[in-house]
Amino acid sequence: MTQMEYARRGHITPEAQYVAEVEGVSVEFVLKQVAEGCAVIPKNRLHKNNKGVAIGKGFRVKVNANIGTSMGYSSAEEEYEKAQVALKAGADAIMVLSTWGDLRGMRRHIVDVVDVPVGSVPIYDAAVLSYARGKAVVDFQASDFIEMVRIHAEDGIDFMTIHAGLTMDIVRRLRHTDRVLKMVSRGGAIIGGWMLKNDRENPFYEYFDEILDIAREYDITLSLGDSMRPGAVVDATDDLQISELIVLGELVQKARAKGVQVMVEGPGHVPLDEIEANVKVAKSITKDAPFFVLGPLPIDSAPGYDHIVAAVGGAIAAYHGTDFLCYVTPAEHVSLPDQDDVYEGVVAAKIAARIADVARRREDSFHREYEMAYARKTFDWDTMFALAVDSEKPRRYREKRPFSGEGCSMCGPFCAIKIIEEYASGEVKVL
Amino acid sequence: MTQMEYARRGHITPEAQYVAEVEGVSVEFVLKQVAEGCAVIPKNRLHKNNKGVAIGKGFRVKVNANIGTSMGYSSAEEEYEKAQVALKAGADAIMVLSTWGDLRGMRRHIVDVVDVPVGSVPIYDAAVLSYARGKAVVDFQASDFIEMVRIHAEDGIDFMTIHAGLTMDIVRRLRHTDRVLKMVSRGGAIIGGWMLKNDRENPFYEYFDEILDIAREYDITLSLGDSMRPGAVVDATDDLQISELIVLGELVQKARAKGVQVMVEGPGHVPLDEIEANVKVAKSITKDAPFFVLGPLPIDSAPGYDHIVAAVGGAIAAYHGTDFLCYVTPAEHVSLPDQDDVYEGVVAAKIAARIADVARRREDSFHREYEMAYARKTFDWDTMFALAVDSEKPRRYREKRPFSGEGCSMCGPFCAIKIIEEYASGEVKVL
Repeated sequence: MTQMEYARRGHITPEAQYVAEVEGVSVEFVLKQVAEGCAVIPKNRLHKNNKGVAIGKGFRVKVNANIGTSMGYSSAEEEYEKAQVALKAGADAIMVLSTWGDLRGMRRHIVDVVDVPVGSVPIYDAAVLSYARGKAVVDFQASDFIEMVRIHAEDGIDFMTIHAGLTMDIVRRLRHTDRVLKMVSRGGAIIGGWMLKNDRENPFYEYFDEILDIAREYDITLSLGDSMRPGAVVDATDDLQISELIVLGELVQKARAKGVQVMVEGPGHVPLDEIEANVKVAKSITKDAPFFVLGPLPIDSAPGYDHIVAAVGGAIAAYHGTDFLCYVTPAEHVSLPDQDDVYEGVVAAKIAARIADVARRREDSFHREYEMAYARKTFDWDTMFALAVDSEKPRRYREKRPFSGEGCSMCGPFCAIKIIEEYASGEVKVL
Repeated sequence: MTQMEYARRGHITPEAQYVAEVEGVSVEFVLKQVAEGCAVIPKNRLHKNNKGVAIGKGFRVKVNANIGTSMGYSSAEEEYEKAQVALKAGADAIMVLSTWGDLRGMRRHIVDVVDVPVGSVPIYDAAVLSYARGKAVVDFQASDFIEMVRIHAEDGIDFMTIHAGLTMDIVRRLRHTDRVLKMVSRGGAIIGGWMLKNDRENPFYEYFDEILDIAREYDITLSLGDSMRPGAVVDATDDLQISELIVLGELVQKARAKGVQVMVEGPGHVPLDEIEANVKVAKSITKDAPFFVLGPLPIDSAPGYDHIVAAVGGAIAAYHGTDFLCYVTPAEHVSLPDQDDVYEGVVAAKIAARIADVARRREDSFHREYEMAYARKTFDWDTMFALAVDSEKPRRYREKRPFSGEGCSMCGPFCAIKIIEEYASGEVKVL
């Protein structure tokens, strides 16, 4: 049975119990959310050391970090290091998106060593196999794609992006769209290319029931990919994107009917004024399925700093109901990230998640901010660093430019906190 | 006459003309906004090389960078370098906030070499003089504070933070507030301390007419400081903050009546869900005075990354009507920033400004995003870098991990843009 099926029967799995403890909610609440499909606990039954992470309504906003090789940058070791760096920075899930080298070996290794949910995009294998084996993607059979899903399931992958919403009707409309960037989803482009070339319906859509059977067998959480997510703010929130979203809403219902855990992926590049609408339409159409966004990026014109751009979009998206943020690194749109980029990307996404949790007045999140303020009032630097999203960087800063007194080298003796505390309390020391 | 008085008479100053050109608006629009006080063009008549920058409704969101020495870190040369770094990164204004060394010399030098508005906080001089000359701040006379304003005016400073809204009634309430951090404004704490110790009304409030006379004489733009801005998200939007804002609204009316340009400073630390309300209440109470915020920071728990936190808050604040963003560097709350921090701080604030300008559908801003998307479609890397908020960092990234084909090393041969363009156009090359 899947986590969803257990929850519907009122059975408390170890993962549901664990999640209740770390989130500070009752296990009954966990079961209710998972049973209704408003939250997922992605855990392949073969991924033994996955302790359980809840993604969805009523839980803390979660962060995913992508790792993976690409052509010319195919060191598995480096990608393993990136996974560790991401976890150290606080990532709640890791997606293995390698497109070069020993894909299966890397996938299995990450599943072995990582105790959080591990995700993948099975369709990438098609592109890679086409290069490695001299076989063209267009020559794959529909059944080959389904087989890739099964292989990933057997490797212990907890959640998989499946581009099942890209129907023939939608992909044909690409020829007449006024989008600047027709498609920026790698998986979407691969399956879309196959569909256009072979003039065949999307196998992930056509054989969705078979995918559900595999997902149910291993308890894979499906992450319904948005092939038509906008890749530029000028392309956002158009008919193609929303048409696919409607299909995804139908697929969510099918998955839930079979007891399969499912979440929905969202944009992408969206101007700030449209982020709230994007989240609310997605939540409404998918009947509160957990929403997983990439960014979103409210401008395109800051390459090198897309982690900051994504932090802005992600904070707003999460405040309005997004449950799961895929990190974006400073290298996005320019090159494959290195370990430092991964670290920075996770921290930026964690900041967005914290901002949203505080704005949504989660008691534990708001209390942490209170403790931070109190640590500032009392110049308790160790507590400040301990509560910080990253303890190391602020500690380095303080050591680099120290100040001998209680405050810091910014204001030196003219620290407002110190001056006014003394005056307001009547114990005048400075001025 | 001040820019406001000229505008009211329909006289086109060189600065109003310049501003109209760079903003792509009619000079009539500039005059209307400046005449009504919805926008300011800060320019001390002694600051000859200040070409003019418009801050306010209908103009691009602007970014201010603070520089300045502090005790133990008093190299003027380093601060001059920071000013140049800030300008290179795109800062629209520089505030000189030195609290150690030759304050006047530094101020004058920056005014001499900088062609954008230069701001200052005259009250800081009191604290510094008290250290340097062994005179206690509490021993200053009310007239000493007013004299500091005149000295800064003579030095060519274009806009000054004046903490005139902190009345005796408000500062007394500090003893009974449940705020965690009573006050985090340096200037506010200095004058508030003086008031409490001497049991005297705030001289900036009491002698506001004299300050207006000085401001009018040199055409100083007053930036009404918010001494009571919250210094922690748990303290945000309280009675103290809003009480001071109401006083600032009265002072705005007094300034406008005398033809003095004026803007209003705002928080500070504010949870994301309260930022819109903060901006709208401020704009309403001050009758659309240009609004200048520090951050705002929607969480306190990310020291070392406050530039990212501020980018989130700043983007939302600017989208809802804030006109002027004071940058926050990664060093905020931990140490005095260095040159790299200044650069990163300005870039993060520029990103927030761009996000807001795009979301507010400024034609030029939205068009830049269109050009960026088109450059991505055509793999025109030079144009991408040219349009970027910072050209150097993405170029470094691309050189560090190059890819020989059209795309980048992230996706290698599996670039969605390339795949789908070929398929949708019928010219199949890959797959």
